[in-house]
Amino acid sequence: MEDFDPRPPRSAYAAAGVDLAASDVAMERIRADVESTYTPHVLRGLGSFGGLFSLPGDVRDPVLVASTDGVGTKTRLAVALGRVRGLGSDLVHHCVNDILVQGARPLFFLDYVASARLDVGVIAEVVGGIADACRAEGVALIGGETAEMPGVYAPGEIDVVGTIVGIVGRDAVIDGTGVQGGDVLLGLESGGLQTNGFSLARSIASGHEGEPVDPSDPSGPTLGEALLAPHRSFSAPLRPLLEAGLVRALAHVTGGGIPGNLPRALPGELGAEIEEGSWPRPVVFDRLQALGEIAEDEMRSVFNLGIGMIVVARPGDVERVRATCPEPLHTIGRVVPGEGVRYLRGG
Amino acid sequence: MEDFDPRPPRSAYAAAGVDLAASDVAMERIRADVESTYTPHVLRGLGSFGGLFSLPGDVRDPVLVASTDGVGTKTRLAVALGRVRGLGSDLVHHCVNDILVQGARPLFFLDYVASARLDVGVIAEVVGGIADACRAEGVALIGGETAEMPGVYAPGEIDVVGTIVGIVGRDAVIDGTGVQGGDVLLGLESGGLQTNGFSLARSIASGHEGEPVDPSDPSGPTLGEALLAPHRSFSAPLRPLLEAGLVRALAHVTGGGIPGNLPRALPGELGAEIEEGSWPRPVVFDRLQALGEIAEDEMRSVFNLGIGMIVVARPGDVERVRATCPEPLHTIGRVVPGEGVRYLRGG
Repeated sequence: MEDFDPRPPRSAYAAAGVDLAASDVAMERIRADVESTYTPHVLRGLGSFGGLFSLPGDVRDPVLVASTDGVGTKTRLAVALGRVRGLGSDLVHHCVNDILVQGARPLFFLDYVASARLDVGVIAEVVGGIADACRAEGVALIGGETAEMPGVYAPGEIDVVGTIVGIVGRDAVIDGTGVQGGDVLLGLESGGLQTNGFSLARSIASGHEGEPVDPSDPSGPTLGEALLAPHRSFSAPLRPLLEAGLVRALAHVTGGGIPGNLPRALPGELGAEIEEGSWPRPVVFDRLQALGEIAEDEMRSVFNLGIGMIVVARPGDVERVRATCPEPLHTIGRVVPGEGVRYLRGG
Repeated sequence: MEDFDPRPPRSAYAAAGVDLAASDVAMERIRADVESTYTPHVLRGLGSFGGLFSLPGDVRDPVLVASTDGVGTKTRLAVALGRVRGLGSDLVHHCVNDILVQGARPLFFLDYVASARLDVGVIAEVVGGIADACRAEGVALIGGETAEMPGVYAPGEIDVVGTIVGIVGRDAVIDGTGVQGGDVLLGLESGGLQTNGFSLARSIASGHEGEPVDPSDPSGPTLGEALLAPHRSFSAPLRPLLEAGLVRALAHVTGGGIPGNLPRALPGELGAEIEEGSWPRPVVFDRLQALGEIAEDEMRSVFNLGIGMIVVARPGDVERVRATCPEPLHTIGRVVPGEGVRYLRGG
């Protein structure tokens, strides 16, 4: 019985007029990339319509945590600049972070890549990037679908979507219920836009992609390169904190920025004060703001502005949190009574 | 803490220029529809970034089975004919069937609906259809994403993608390993195209959608209506067979027809003989074949031609299989030595 193959049959490529000799090479690469992610829990050689994953037995009272997401119109910039491989890690990291905030460790992943016409070279690059990120995170890529949708997608454009499933013991679910006023907000750096705000960013950056992102450093990275900076995974810094039980809540700063995401991680009667200027702001945001003449309020509600993940910790735990976390944490504010997010002018 | 809400924040709709009063009604409908699918295993009020599902404890040595799929360009016809709600059940049923063939019972579902511009009315219809089908199948809709991708999607078009996760005991995985030459192929009726072959079907049907699908029955359904016939779920007929241990292998007849799907369910050294004319062929296929002057070989490799699911059974079990299955099973052929699918002229 053939191994599980998540891609369309060869005949689909032939029907689409794809060069089969070239596509066989790419298909072989896809298969090898996918299989490189398999963990011992993947059941191979069994069936071929859906991915099989034997459940780890080491979690008491297990809860599955699942999330589906795409990378938004970052795809358009990646396609335009010929750098689609990075979309794979953008996608996987986004999904890993989305279940990490509930305390879950990822088990497996499924992808969906669609376009108007099958371009097996592009698909191999995207799936290769997904596989790279899955392997690095210890996540098995157990399924996927490649769809050819003429007339639904604009010519040359792609959509890249993923679903992650993870596991957490019921007692270890991070749900923010223990959060109290006065708790400290500690931020991890995003390094860039991650995968959010691209519709605005692209409209601002259009025609300026080749210019240096930092006008004072003409030999530095271009604006286009800065925009494509990868969506980080926060597994490495957060895993030790979760294991040590030092986390009261976590907020993944995605679409909607801090005001759009932090409140969802807090109990209904609590909000947050954020201190302006309490973390380094990547130059790409300043460049976008200047080029687009964007008000600071709008910047905050569209972009992460440099903080990709917020850890909510007890004031008494902050020292231990810092000692346990393998990278810098910025104290960006605190939890306060009342709903919503207020910005305080820095001292 | 707010309940889990898988849809975009209200601000995203406001930013997209959506009428918020109308959209609030639709959003409320989406929320109610999604919550109507919740089973006792869904953990509510905990976190908000990913769906939480407590694992049923009644399966020994549990294996998770997952599958991602879309409904292909059936979306285009549904949009053109203003009947997008059916896409929801198409999607859920396709996914349910894809893991059913491995013996799995579905636990939860996540959806992804994307378009160039958010149209909350369309999204509410699609998600409503997904929720209807999930509720009927006992599957919890625990997450989803609605993406606005200007420039990626053609104006007015949508993509509709879903991921299903199910469970099966390791000993109950249907993997075809017990299949032997001489085993009998029993077919369940599809009733129509399900969700495959739509790129070809649409190109043939273009301009004829309003004509009767059966020229001899001018007051009967139109070709467009026949094409949109729902993708069936095969849970009801198959569940009793699986519980009775009467199934050696199952093939969900999707893209690629019987030749593209049945061999994947059989051990490598075995193939199948299919008897032409051994089941009723829905008139929609004859109409497409006549309109498009399509050769029978191509019809077989693109469409299911009326058989949506194939049960492989021991010859000695056939009587019990028929007695156990709540709907008619057509004897469409048998398993034979050698690879591939051969068609035999009917007697």
